[in-house]
Amino acid sequence: MRILGIDPGLGATGLGVIEGDRDTVRHVYHTAVRPSSSLPLPERLEVIRSAVRDAARDWHADAAAVESGYVGPNPRSALALGQARAAALLGVADAGIPVFEYAPAIVKQTIAGYGRGDKGQVARMVRLQLGLEEEPRPADAADALAVAITHWAHWRLDAARPSDARSGR
Amino acid sequence: MRILGIDPGLGATGLGVIEGDRDTVRHVYHTAVRPSSSLPLPERLEVIRSAVRDAARDWHADAAAVESGYVGPNPRSALALGQARAAALLGVADAGIPVFEYAPAIVKQTIAGYGRGDKGQVARMVRLQLGLEEEPRPADAADALAVAITHWAHWRLDAARPSDARSGR
Repeated sequence: MRILGIDPGLGATGLGVIEGDRDTVRHVYHTAVRPSSSLPLPERLEVIRSAVRDAARDWHADAAAVESGYVGPNPRSALALGQARAAALLGVADAGIPVFEYAPAIVKQTIAGYGRGDKGQVARMVRLQLGLEEEPRPADAADALAVAITHWAHWRLDAARPSDARSGR
Repeated sequence: MRILGIDPGLGATGLGVIEGDRDTVRHVYHTAVRPSSSLPLPERLEVIRSAVRDAARDWHADAAAVESGYVGPNPRSALALGQARAAALLGVADAGIPVFEYAPAIVKQTIAGYGRGDKGQVARMVRLQLGLEEEPRPADAADALAVAITHWAHWRLDAARPSDARSGR
């Protein structure tokens, strides 16, 4: 099970690929895509969409995962986030794989337990969970790996459940 | 010169096609696309993207125009608008035509002069400018025609200017 995690942002979109089975999970790849702020908006969105689509294809991802729901107080930031998120979701659609959304609280809880789950803690826990020598950088890539791990943890719980108890989606 | 005007929205995306030369402009088509709110977000975005791409292709649009810049005070609305706008811009990119953005104030000024430019006035002025028997409905489609007319008005001014005075983009 290959999972592409995405942390969308107009300034930087984090991408992280992991591979997991019922028992173990390992790190495959991570990066952050930064469309030049001098590009017109449609081209910045195109950069994000292509990067997501290409990452899903190149790394043979079976599913994608993205954080949903969080909106800060600033409408301009929310507009920018919405644009980046849509570009990422359409990149996943182009790659022909399903995408799963997880609320930020679920990601923090899965990765960092019930702690505060600040940015630094997420990167530390991602490093530990994937057995990496260093914390993945930048923070956007660590967040992308975190949402990928979150999907793996949910998928694994689901796979462990007896089939007659599984509920349809 | 065929122009596809777009008024992006997650609930309803207005589309309007006009055809203009240096002297005249005429109405070709308008509609509003309403992705079911029961669909998951990625599919709603896909509906908007495909509708924009197909409209541009089917009506042989040479360029697209979209309103830019306006963000209301509500971050959740801004997030939704950002997502719809990105889906529309990527639909235009898929069709391989350029997209031009106009600030809401420019659209209102072009369509309705220096008046207040409320929603009703925009629809009335679009009807008059395109010589339609009735005001285009719904309001999203009228707004889409308005931004298309705005692009036509700017393109026409640009085309009328002596070539040695034209500035590069």
